[in-house]
Amino acid sequence: MTDAANAGMLADSALIAHGRGEAFDYLLGEATCEPARMAICKTASALLSADKCVISVNGNTVALAGTQLIACAAVLNCPVEVNIYYRTPERMKALISALEKQRMDATKLYPNLAEKIVNVPILGDNPDGQIPNLDGPRANCHSDGILSANAILVPLEDGDRCEALIAMGKTVCVIDLNPLSRTAKTASVTIVDELTRCVPILLNELMRESASQDEDWDNDLNLQEVIAVMLRILE
Amino acid sequence: MTDAANAGMLADSALIAHGRGEAFDYLLGEATCEPARMAICKTASALLSADKCVISVNGNTVALAGTQLIACAAVLNCPVEVNIYYRTPERMKALISALEKQRMDATKLYPNLAEKIVNVPILGDNPDGQIPNLDGPRANCHSDGILSANAILVPLEDGDRCEALIAMGKTVCVIDLNPLSRTAKTASVTIVDELTRCVPILLNELMRESASQDEDWDNDLNLQEVIAVMLRILE
Repeated sequence: MTDAANAGMLADSALIAHGRGEAFDYLLGEATCEPARMAICKTASALLSADKCVISVNGNTVALAGTQLIACAAVLNCPVEVNIYYRTPERMKALISALEKQRMDATKLYPNLAEKIVNVPILGDNPDGQIPNLDGPRANCHSDGILSANAILVPLEDGDRCEALIAMGKTVCVIDLNPLSRTAKTASVTIVDELTRCVPILLNELMRESASQDEDWDNDLNLQEVIAVMLRILE
Repeated sequence: MTDAANAGMLADSALIAHGRGEAFDYLLGEATCEPARMAICKTASALLSADKCVISVNGNTVALAGTQLIACAAVLNCPVEVNIYYRTPERMKALISALEKQRMDATKLYPNLAEKIVNVPILGDNPDGQIPNLDGPRANCHSDGILSANAILVPLEDGDRCEALIAMGKTVCVIDLNPLSRTAKTASVTIVDELTRCVPILLNELMRESASQDEDWDNDLNLQEVIAVMLRILE
């Protein structure tokens, strides 16, 4: 993360947000808990069954799991869209070039997916749409990405944008270590887990393509189960 | 904190540590809990009754509460010593000059203490001693500061150095938002509270000079009480 900060990929406060996550991860025993595994499976089925999906990434997400998320996008035949809160041309450029490097890494790590990986659209530098009910440059998005997707995977999303995406009627799957955050509470499916641990599990689930969409999902109940895990560790 | 980072006062990972604290503060409801108030009173009495004391500060501490800690040092007639984990001449210089500026601010904020404030020794740039059983530059300290003090107030200390100071037989009072950290568990007195909230309370207690030293102190019990507060909020 400090390397990513020095490479200009992160906003000034990104490391503070990362640290908040680390503390909550400590309360998870730095392990993927059972409720998180269930949320990962639900996310896989929501993405696989959507007409159109997209993976939205910010600086912290690219730094931690860009390579694996490009592989997920390859399985899903969907774009990866850079969508950052504090948008500057320099950061956008740094992130897109980091993703292009990660795309090359991904072809080597996942040779079976290589052909699809090279074709994953990486969006973000030329937004032609707006997320309604959101102020400023953070509303900018691509019409063939976030704007038109039915289901969206957004690791490390902020609360405002999560609410705005839900208000658009999308299925919003987030990854957030704080089960009490507005994002965690607002999303359709919340994976309370650390990115580098859960994205490889999600990739496996996507490749199995066995996840079924018919079961009900109670996100509040899942969050309560995660909090119960944290309570046991804190006690 | 991001301003302090941009001013070269902080190590690369300092913002991550700050974020970890923010998450634990969230579990405290961002308020000073009753067990923390007790630990603040105990810290005041330990410092006031010590033959020699010192306030040890790192980059995050200077950024958050340098001005108020200089006022505490003025009441205690003790030095402030900069003692940083990742020691570079540039960071040491940035921190000492920030403290000199904060000293001026403190004379205006606390005019009754102004005369004492201008005389607070600010140590750190010329260490002539070593904390035993600690590797590398983080062991460096001043013989008229940390090395010879009987009681030390160390906000945001790392676990290794806390253990080394305890092994020297010192009374070590720490401020740490994570009640489960090695520092929190090792210290003589642990204030589990946010710096900008608790240091003004500590300053008030020091000025009252009414704290008595005779009561016993069970630091583990106090930490358990803090954890109980967090459990109630998490539930």
